[in-house]
Amino acid sequence: EVEDEIAVGGKCIYMVSDGTGWTAEHSVNAALGQFEHCLVDRACAVNTHLFSGVDNHERLMEVIKQAAKEGALLVYTLADPYMAESARQACRHWGVPSTDILGPITEAIASHLGVSPSGLPRGAPGRSYGLTDEYFKRIDAIEFTIKQDDGALPQNLHKADIVLAGVSRTGKTPLSIYLAQKGYKVANVPIVMGVELPKTLFEVDPEKVFGMTINPVVLQTIRRARAKALGFKKEARSNYSEMDHVREELEFAGKIFAQNPVWPVIEVTGKAIEEIAAVVLRLYHDRKQRCSMPRISKRY
Amino acid sequence: EVEDEIAVGGKCIYMVSDGTGWTAEHSVNAALGQFEHCLVDRACAVNTHLFSGVDNHERLMEVIKQAAKEGALLVYTLADPYMAESARQACRHWGVPSTDILGPITEAIASHLGVSPSGLPRGAPGRSYGLTDEYFKRIDAIEFTIKQDDGALPQNLHKADIVLAGVSRTGKTPLSIYLAQKGYKVANVPIVMGVELPKTLFEVDPEKVFGMTINPVVLQTIRRARAKALGFKKEARSNYSEMDHVREELEFAGKIFAQNPVWPVIEVTGKAIEEIAAVVLRLYHDRKQRCSMPRISKRY
Ligand SMILES: Nc1ncnc2c1ncn2[C@@H]1O[C@H](COP(=O)(O)O)[C@@H](O)[C@H]1O
Ligand SMILES: Nc1ncnc2c1ncn2[C@@H]1O[C@H](COP(=O)(O)O)[C@@H](O)[C@H]1O
Ligand SMILES: [Mg+2]
Ligand SMILES: [Mg+2]
Repeated sequence: EVEDEIAVGGKCIYMVSDGTGWTAEHSVNAALGQFEHCLVDRACAVNTHLFSGVDNHERLMEVIKQAAKEGALLVYTLADPYMAESARQACRHWGVPSTDILGPITEAIASHLGVSPSGLPRGAPGRSYGLTDEYFKRIDAIEFTIKQDDGALPQNLHKADIVLAGVSRTGKTPLSIYLAQKGYKVANVPIVMGVELPKTLFEVDPEKVFGMTINPVVLQTIRRARAKALGFKKEARSNYSEMDHVREELEFAGKIFAQNPVWPVIEVTGKAIEEIAAVVLRLYHDRKQRCSMPRISKRY
Repeated sequence: EVEDEIAVGGKCIYMVSDGTGWTAEHSVNAALGQFEHCLVDRACAVNTHLFSGVDNHERLMEVIKQAAKEGALLVYTLADPYMAESARQACRHWGVPSTDILGPITEAIASHLGVSPSGLPRGAPGRSYGLTDEYFKRIDAIEFTIKQDDGALPQNLHKADIVLAGVSRTGKTPLSIYLAQKGYKVANVPIVMGVELPKTLFEVDPEKVFGMTINPVVLQTIRRARAKALGFKKEARSNYSEMDHVREELEFAGKIFAQNPVWPVIEVTGKAIEEIAAVVLRLYHDRKQRCSMPRISKRY
């Protein structure tokens, strides 16, 4: 989906934010999931255009006029109520369909808290971020996770919040990184047939270890693509991606999981990284909280 | 903010999704930014609770009843229109204030495209993900980026989409990882006074290189925290985080940036990682597209 060419054909969606635009993009992506049946093969084509840092009236009008020209839908997040109202009115005036992503949720929270929103965009002068405990925690988690990738430094497994174990190409690395971005220190340990696992894996709190498993046919497909991309020689390739070997290695992993019944085993076949992350974190928090309804709780 | 204790005091926000819940969480986080003036020092306290994978009516009702008990605001994303309508009605019935995050944007896109939404949640049976080109591209980007971290493998700079250069603790690593998650291959190159930069840095397309700079006082604060965390000895610490050294090193970096005027220099002081990413990507796409209005375009 990441392409740079200017759209040729297809309906346009403009995403406009006084900030980064990631909130609008995330919501639009979720909603586009509802049109996959039609987006497949570009039966109905969609082009999105993200305009970030739109923090003054003039630029806002420029973008809306362009949206009118291109016949785009405009999705916006504008913290300043005057800017949001201007967007609404200009869209109506130029016949641009529009959706406010930030307004409704902000209003709901305002009346829930009994507090007025600041109306200040995230980049507004005088506001400062970056140096909170949360910021340092997240950076530490990312740096820790990178260093432990692919079984490196097994002596540090006890420092991890979450340990992932699974055979090659079950998505341990991208999952680790995704979780690290959310502030968790993650270590991942590859399971390779014939290679002994670090003994620290069996010494750490088993409640923080997660096994990953996958359908062998799907795994073979992924490994073939991988072997090709890496330019493996035919022989190395067959060991890595031949069906018998793939099955045996998954069985080998399955036995280890069976010997460690406290480890939850996550089935990753056909799941996106963020979906696997959701499953892991739900279990992780559930185990820590042991409350009746699994949930991830935070304080602000 | 990542804490596991059950709330003691504070208003509750329940986030409910038939999927991962990340969309609801992202929107709530953006909206909470509008209440920072009051969240600071927990003058008004907020507790969020994320319920993912709520894909049947029974569990939905359970969560809403609990929300009613806790006096929570309920924010939901439910793809199945019957589930979404049930949530709306149950919330009204039990007096739970609620906001639908997915419905309005999905409806807007539906009428824009002239196509009905599928109504299927992301985990619905029969749907498959994971093995698209986009999936492989993202994983490659993450693996590439991890391997190049902190100046490793300068011979690979020409393979990167984006190269970041800056002194230690300007946030190169978390920024690289954030961009990698979005599918960009990133390499980062540390600038250290007295250490020669890899010559490949000056051989690659200068349009993909970004310098990073930061206020010296803020950098010193970050470095002090870092030196303490790493348990640096006093002497090593002073070289790394003493003001004279910090200033000199930033000046050294500034000279290199001045000698390479095509590199944009990004001021990162007080910016969150996702804000810096937004700036970098806006420039990156703008340089590639050279169209009159900077924007990031994608095709679906
Ligand atoms: N920390 C924050 N403080 C104030 N406003 C924010 C914050 N984070 C996001 N926003 C606002 O929420 C909307 C979405 O942000 P973004 O995802 O950066 O486009 C924009 O209108 C931002 O100005
Ligand atoms: N690829 C997708 N296909 C269908 N629905 C999706 C997709 N991605 C997200 N959604 C829906 O969008 C909402 C938000 O998703 P999530 O961020 O996983 O909570 C949920 O109702 C999901 O079911
Ligand atoms: Mg936005
Ligand atoms: Mg959600």
